[in-house]
Amino acid sequence: MRTKPGFESTPPHPIPSHYTQLNFTASDVEIKETKMVVKVYGPHYASTKRVLVCLAEKGIEFETSPVDLIKGENRNPEFLELQPFGSVPVIQDGDYTLYESRAIIRYYAEKHKSQGTDLLGESIEERGLVEQWLEVEAQNYHPQIYNLTLHILFASALGFPPDEKLIKESEEKLAKVLDIYEERLSRSKYLAGDFFSLADLSHLPFTQYLVGPMKKEFMIRSRKHVSAWWDDISSRPSWKKVSLL
Amino acid sequence: MRTKPGFESTPPHPIPSHYTQLNFTASDVEIKETKMVVKVYGPHYASTKRVLVCLAEKGIEFETSPVDLIKGENRNPEFLELQPFGSVPVIQDGDYTLYESRAIIRYYAEKHKSQGTDLLGESIEERGLVEQWLEVEAQNYHPQIYNLTLHILFASALGFPPDEKLIKESEEKLAKVLDIYEERLSRSKYLAGDFFSLADLSHLPFTQYLVGPMKKEFMIRSRKHVSAWWDDISSRPSWKKVSLL
Repeated sequence: MRTKPGFESTPPHPIPSHYTQLNFTASDVEIKETKMVVKVYGPHYASTKRVLVCLAEKGIEFETSPVDLIKGENRNPEFLELQPFGSVPVIQDGDYTLYESRAIIRYYAEKHKSQGTDLLGESIEERGLVEQWLEVEAQNYHPQIYNLTLHILFASALGFPPDEKLIKESEEKLAKVLDIYEERLSRSKYLAGDFFSLADLSHLPFTQYLVGPMKKEFMIRSRKHVSAWWDDISSRPSWKKVSLL
Repeated sequence: MRTKPGFESTPPHPIPSHYTQLNFTASDVEIKETKMVVKVYGPHYASTKRVLVCLAEKGIEFETSPVDLIKGENRNPEFLELQPFGSVPVIQDGDYTLYESRAIIRYYAEKHKSQGTDLLGESIEERGLVEQWLEVEAQNYHPQIYNLTLHILFASALGFPPDEKLIKESEEKLAKVLDIYEERLSRSKYLAGDFFSLADLSHLPFTQYLVGPMKKEFMIRSRKHVSAWWDDISSRPSWKKVSLL
């Protein structure tokens, strides 16, 4: 289970499945259905930005509902009703609720495959490689960069001392992962092939922490192909918009 | 990066894309294409069994190629050519190579959706829930049960002392995850709904370690709905066959 702070949430207000507005006139009854937008909980955190940048790439409208993990709003009973593990993000789309960022981005990439940027590849084989590199991100890249984020950026706010040994080990392991990325990216422009996909997108939020507030940009810049890849994916309009949230 | 032992691999023999057998007769030339079967590396490990039980559910033929992690065969250059992180499983299907167990099971579940057991749900919304619970398995359940497996079952073979503090913490965290499963499974027969899916299947191999050699079956049996779910999924013919490998 993720080492997440535990607290209470902003009161989530579930959106009714179909909110209809009835306008009676002299001559008829007009039923106007308001446009549903996706509601995203926890917009200020990196794992949620993984979802937001996906929605931006697909051109899907969204609204956000803040959840303050430092104040423990994710341990509020109303939030746990939506997400029993107390993690962000969660989305509500009509009466459909979904959590886990990488599940949410797969859902929208598939549901609106032909809208906005195709993020899954053209064939089942390309999608397989997208899934492979998305799993590499989740299983090899993320645990290390998550440890660095937690212990370098958030330890003092959460009231525990940073674990310097863990920071050192995580940086060494992340460097080895990046060496493999360097080799891969010398052979294809993006991780799953010569197309931008969920696999690349999924790296954006935590890598932004690494090159920005963590001051470890050298880990990217010391690797020629990783550096070019980072410049490419982090300059996409979707990320420029979402990273400012 | 996973804490995996590093060594050298069994020499992988890539299967050529199309192996053709040419039979010349007096009257003609017959080109007979031999049937391709999926080659799976590392059949004796739990993460590989996640793939094998999926192939069994889909009725897909496979052959296996052992990789001994204890001897370090996964650090052999030929194996690293297939899987640069040195982890099992890897599959070869003609000239298509794929790694990461959860990517491989998604690939076959989608490629052969209408063959054997449908493991993805009927609608995009059901698939979203399959993905959500597959991520819960990967992000919440797996890290704990992996720590228990490594430190209780494999520490001595790999030559390091089991970390008793980590074992205790991992068991406590796993218990909390199972409490959430208990609540979920009181409302639906399987994790993603009333249908067996990749989300359930993905739990089989490591949970078998838990109830078997780790002697922690009480963690399952003390939770009524988790217990019934485990009886159901572990008695499937696919798992009965694969668990014996």
